[in-house]
Amino acid sequence: MSTARETIGIGVVGHAFMGAVHSHAWRNVHRFFETPLIPRLAVLGGRDEGRAKAAAAKFGWADVETDWRALITRDDVDLVDICTPGDSHAEIAIAALEAGKHVLCEKPLANTLAEAEAMAEAAAKARERGVRSMVAFNYRRVPALAHARQLVAGGALGEIRHVRSVYLQDWLSDPQSPMTWRLRKEKAGSGALGDLGAHIVDAAQFVTGERITGVSALTNTFVPERPDGDGGRGQVTVDDTALFFGRLSGGAVAGFEVTRYALGRKNAMRLEVNGSKASLAFDFESMNELSWYDGTGPSTEAGFRRILVTEPEHPYVGVWWPPGHLLGYEHTFTNEVADLLTAIGEGTDPEPSFEDGLGVQRVLDAVERSAAEEARWTAVAAQIRTRE
Amino acid sequence: MSTARETIGIGVVGHAFMGAVHSHAWRNVHRFFETPLIPRLAVLGGRDEGRAKAAAAKFGWADVETDWRALITRDDVDLVDICTPGDSHAEIAIAALEAGKHVLCEKPLANTLAEAEAMAEAAAKARERGVRSMVAFNYRRVPALAHARQLVAGGALGEIRHVRSVYLQDWLSDPQSPMTWRLRKEKAGSGALGDLGAHIVDAAQFVTGERITGVSALTNTFVPERPDGDGGRGQVTVDDTALFFGRLSGGAVAGFEVTRYALGRKNAMRLEVNGSKASLAFDFESMNELSWYDGTGPSTEAGFRRILVTEPEHPYVGVWWPPGHLLGYEHTFTNEVADLLTAIGEGTDPEPSFEDGLGVQRVLDAVERSAAEEARWTAVAAQIRTRE
Amino acid sequence: MSTARETIGIGVVGHAFMGAVHSHAWRNVHRFFETPLIPRLAVLGGRDEGRAKAAAAKFGWADVETDWRALITRDDVDLVDICTPGDSHAEIAIAALEAGKHVLCEKPLANTLAEAEAMAEAAAKARERGVRSMVAFNYRRVPALAHARQLVAGGALGEIRHVRSVYLQDWLSDPQSPMTWRLRKEKAGSGALGDLGAHIVDAAQFVTGERITGVSALTNTFVPERPDGDGGRGQVTVDDTALFFGRLSGGAVAGFEVTRYALGRKNAMRLEVNGSKASLAFDFESMNELSWYDGTGPSTEAGFRRILVTEPEHPYVGVWWPPGHLLGYEHTFTNEVADLLTAIGEGTDPEPSFEDGLGVQRVLDAVERSAAEEARWTAVAAQIRTRE
Amino acid sequence: MSTARETIGIGVVGHAFMGAVHSHAWRNVHRFFETPLIPRLAVLGGRDEGRAKAAAAKFGWADVETDWRALITRDDVDLVDICTPGDSHAEIAIAALEAGKHVLCEKPLANTLAEAEAMAEAAAKARERGVRSMVAFNYRRVPALAHARQLVAGGALGEIRHVRSVYLQDWLSDPQSPMTWRLRKEKAGSGALGDLGAHIVDAAQFVTGERITGVSALTNTFVPERPDGDGGRGQVTVDDTALFFGRLSGGAVAGFEVTRYALGRKNAMRLEVNGSKASLAFDFESMNELSWYDGTGPSTEAGFRRILVTEPEHPYVGVWWPPGHLLGYEHTFTNEVADLLTAIGEGTDPEPSFEDGLGVQRVLDAVERSAAEEARWTAVAAQIRTRE
Repeated sequence: MSTARETIGIGVVGHAFMGAVHSHAWRNVHRFFETPLIPRLAVLGGRDEGRAKAAAAKFGWADVETDWRALITRDDVDLVDICTPGDSHAEIAIAALEAGKHVLCEKPLANTLAEAEAMAEAAAKARERGVRSMVAFNYRRVPALAHARQLVAGGALGEIRHVRSVYLQDWLSDPQSPMTWRLRKEKAGSGALGDLGAHIVDAAQFVTGERITGVSALTNTFVPERPDGDGGRGQVTVDDTALFFGRLSGGAVAGFEVTRYALGRKNAMRLEVNGSKASLAFDFESMNELSWYDGTGPSTEAGFRRILVTEPEHPYVGVWWPPGHLLGYEHTFTNEVADLLTAIGEGTDPEPSFEDGLGVQRVLDAVERSAAEEARWTAVAAQIRTRE
Repeated sequence: MSTARETIGIGVVGHAFMGAVHSHAWRNVHRFFETPLIPRLAVLGGRDEGRAKAAAAKFGWADVETDWRALITRDDVDLVDICTPGDSHAEIAIAALEAGKHVLCEKPLANTLAEAEAMAEAAAKARERGVRSMVAFNYRRVPALAHARQLVAGGALGEIRHVRSVYLQDWLSDPQSPMTWRLRKEKAGSGALGDLGAHIVDAAQFVTGERITGVSALTNTFVPERPDGDGGRGQVTVDDTALFFGRLSGGAVAGFEVTRYALGRKNAMRLEVNGSKASLAFDFESMNELSWYDGTGPSTEAGFRRILVTEPEHPYVGVWWPPGHLLGYEHTFTNEVADLLTAIGEGTDPEPSFEDGLGVQRVLDAVERSAAEEARWTAVAAQIRTRE
Repeated sequence: MSTARETIGIGVVGHAFMGAVHSHAWRNVHRFFETPLIPRLAVLGGRDEGRAKAAAAKFGWADVETDWRALITRDDVDLVDICTPGDSHAEIAIAALEAGKHVLCEKPLANTLAEAEAMAEAAAKARERGVRSMVAFNYRRVPALAHARQLVAGGALGEIRHVRSVYLQDWLSDPQSPMTWRLRKEKAGSGALGDLGAHIVDAAQFVTGERITGVSALTNTFVPERPDGDGGRGQVTVDDTALFFGRLSGGAVAGFEVTRYALGRKNAMRLEVNGSKASLAFDFESMNELSWYDGTGPSTEAGFRRILVTEPEHPYVGVWWPPGHLLGYEHTFTNEVADLLTAIGEGTDPEPSFEDGLGVQRVLDAVERSAAEEARWTAVAAQIRTRE
Repeated sequence: MSTARETIGIGVVGHAFMGAVHSHAWRNVHRFFETPLIPRLAVLGGRDEGRAKAAAAKFGWADVETDWRALITRDDVDLVDICTPGDSHAEIAIAALEAGKHVLCEKPLANTLAEAEAMAEAAAKARERGVRSMVAFNYRRVPALAHARQLVAGGALGEIRHVRSVYLQDWLSDPQSPMTWRLRKEKAGSGALGDLGAHIVDAAQFVTGERITGVSALTNTFVPERPDGDGGRGQVTVDDTALFFGRLSGGAVAGFEVTRYALGRKNAMRLEVNGSKASLAFDFESMNELSWYDGTGPSTEAGFRRILVTEPEHPYVGVWWPPGHLLGYEHTFTNEVADLLTAIGEGTDPEPSFEDGLGVQRVLDAVERSAAEEARWTAVAAQIRTRE
């Protein structure tokens, strides 16, 4: 059945952690999903030729390029997948879109608001030519969160009152753990805020279908310098943690926290939403589960239930394994590129769009500005394009 | 052995929920703890004589008074236990202290900062005459939280980086649930903030041994009017929820949230503290457990452990039941009055003091002021007396 | 309102762990429940006069007796509460019933089947004279298990297929922990089997409303001798663990395990029942919770829900605290004597009856015989009286 | 780096659920593990040519065969992977081994003891010629269980006293769910026992390093006939559930239960082991976690800890994702074939061997015989070859 499907040439830029996960997704997506297009792993881009070739061999890419500009203009590349640090997203993405290539871009969309705006504009223009773009908020493709979105969209929660979300990691707890590019502002843009905050801001807006309209924020850097690996000390120029709260467009209030210092929390991306009729809660450390409280039945039988989101009727799950057979981190990417390939094949716009990514960026920007001004309340500008 | 103990006459003012729990504690404390003093349940105070007599009979009090002024001057009353709404705390407590009676006062200490300051001052003066006072932050007597305090005080957490605490209830989720005094500012002072926020602010400061030095806050009232029980509508003049974050005196950051609209969360008073060496977490809905993460051992064996705080070596537990046999809500009060009786008997100052209560009040006041000014950063004044 | 209630004189025999818990229940039951009778704590029985007097003073008993025979004939004693080791249950209970006293007897009902049969017979005769008896399977008064029983009785589970129940403790894990009477067959009758097995056999039969009709069993003694406290070694003459499975009268299968060697499990009395329409699960270490799975709704929203059994509509809970405010171990006894007082006051038969206790004993006896004969399948005789 | 690795031709027989998972493992294993051999997906075997071709296209196999006899003799096949129902395992495996092909065989090893013995014998002979064989107990490759094995092997548990293990599913709870080959004895050998019991017997023996020496068992078929899909009724000729307990070679006792009727339990393969120094517990529905109780420290800090088995130092995890990024069901197979390729490449014997599979089979056979004779105690014959 899958034999008649056309192929689509993929070029990925970057081959570190994200490059590895994306490669896996491209390599396997059509083995599970009946995507209209079958990815060809055409080119892997990396500045160091030797390391790029080793990565290409390991991950299954046919060729390599050391200059992303060469990569994005190759004829065998139909889609550019950007897995580099945030400081290069805008330049690559805009150029690729202008070159007529579909683009998948890792989050956060960009390191600055100006870049993100330019990217959203480029995406809007490209869309008119049938060129598609998507920002890789992979957590939308966790079946439990996709199911949560469906429950909210179907009205099961009633009026939403509360969102509370944290993203807790602990890999910087030790003051002696060394510097990385993720701790340098010029490369990473921000620290926990952009890396982790982008995920939970997007998740909160995605699941509720509402927009954060204003925030007040505090950031902190616990360990201002770290070993640089050469016997010296490097300056940490990004936040280690950010706490912020805000209001949602529908009247709810929302609290957020991100950190890399929550000792013992390895990847605790958590989201809870309380409505007038039901509540839901999620923790990525138990990513196959959704906590669900139905407040409409008898009080004697009400309780948060642990839904194992592994039923064939749950989003994405049907192509995978039987009930109770868990999915892992990488499946979120495979599900994601399945949606992207479907959108491209069907000529529709994939979600989350660059505009969605810009919307997240506007929130992060407001958080940074608020934190810089002693938690001053800071409005978040509306997105440039409301989805109709 | 307990036969030689002296007695102490108790007078309780108020016989609603708190009066019932306190009565239980006074009735039973000496059956478990070897307190130096045995409480006599002398007088119960209540404005309606019939209801007061019924309550006295039910709870085991020897006599009743309908005027608290009469109660606090009776010779058979050595200790006045204040279980009324917050608007009368200051007047009763100050008068009782001046009458030479020890005082146990329910939280929050008062509805206004001025009242709380006057109370702390009265307590300081009374202390010089050997008259003791205590504010009833009963959660300090949850064995798991008392154990948490010991772990932090012993240095097991290392440098504290994060506190996150919420107190979530849901009894106002239904917009049709009727008005109560708790929703009227003139009676309750504030809403979720004073009722629930007082607990978590005290718990955070108690467990960490640090002080909140500044906050930024947002409050919200989801349902501005409710059925008044007479066919009309009453105005809700307090907050339904408050979100705030702040800084601690030792350099940590802290996030807080209180609400009565978190559908499905019945009494989720939660506290998590992350240090450089260990982390701890607590949830009152599982009040016999402490989550504990030791980050100093091998990573392959590290994980949050669920300590059942029911070992005889745990605080307060030795007088109760064997391991794995749980304690309930009321035990926190019995443990509390055991500590109070011990302090009185030994001539020492019980904790938490009215100064501690004032310290909490200063934080709540800062939260209210910040919320009133669009989350403006608001410093918290230092307490008038630092514990030496 | 409670002033008009008549009193009932209680005499308790034994003042160790069980005596302490029962005393607490008698002292407090009428402070919460509107029982038709108010207990008078008349006499505490204990062989050593000094220790008995100390216990009476501590627990609040008016008088002591050193001979239980004197206690059971006193005019101020209307109800005899037996809190002694199992070897004396039959003699005391039968004599008390014959003396016209109501009897509450700790579990297991007796150490031998013959004794249990004689007790049930005595209870049946006494019943004709309006004298009531009850065996103290306090776990039936855990609100979560009482609620579970109601759910099953109401048909919510459909056809019952599976029961699995364990009672795991660990206080003998250390081979150096010393001998106690609980490890001597002549005193305790059996080891984990009678102590813990009695509870889960009763709970399984109570919750399902079915009877265990046959079993196959294995027992083991891991540590055959222990320090006797006098520098010598004592022989352990009871089982350390028992595993057994069986069939229920309604067609279900059931598996059981009891042990005092499950390191880390402090009081894990667990019960799970799977039906054709729903499942339930319980763990005494989280005794305020019932796990509930409703299999009749959409699969995408199905999951085990954690019901906090603290709602006013739940069994027993209405007289206690608000939702989310937990109950503890001792409440099971207070609830139990409330039911007993109600039955006596209303002239009805309390449950569980001595016949119920005998029914449990028959199962334990079959387990012992099966284990003695290499796990041979052993039928359990039907109870002498089926509840009509 | 991976470029120099030799390839190994794989032929898989069967393309249903197991064929799909195995295909995924073969396709991806060398993308993560530095295996000495890189699999070539040479041939997929299936009796229906059209369905086989579709499966081959979907899963990525180069060619198909409709006769397994042709498949096992092809030159491009070096390893035969048997993913068929149990009734054909022996014939295919023995023939493949005799043809000099390495063999990976799905569990249970065979439907009868005689077949399993013949397979073990064939494996022993093949081993002398350097031909390797492995039975696919994939749960040994769950990192949490592999870690558990290491903890036990390192002595961390001390003397093992208890094993309790269940494998609970619910897909037959509905009496109207139709017949499948899994419910016919001639095809499946047994029901829940062979399908699920094989896993937990192997896991118990693997983790403890001990052997089950005798068992007593009960089996039951709740729903004896089901819709056959053609409007008629088919006879269920296998067990729906099996309960058994036994003794381990080191003195521990063990309890087991398997069922497809535990409503709400989707894939609850659970194992708990209690030792004299520590305990561990596992549940496949939370497969990235290991519960671990260390009984050697202070009692006040002891508790079951939830180890997220996602650290780079944990077995298999290093090649996958960062801490807290979960693995799923399929990873157990990828890890498994990594081990197999490593063994083949290094010329060592992979585990679990066919002898291990035979050992499991002997236990299952004893269970069946015991159940057929009213739970009679039934010894389990020692394995033919003890691992040296």
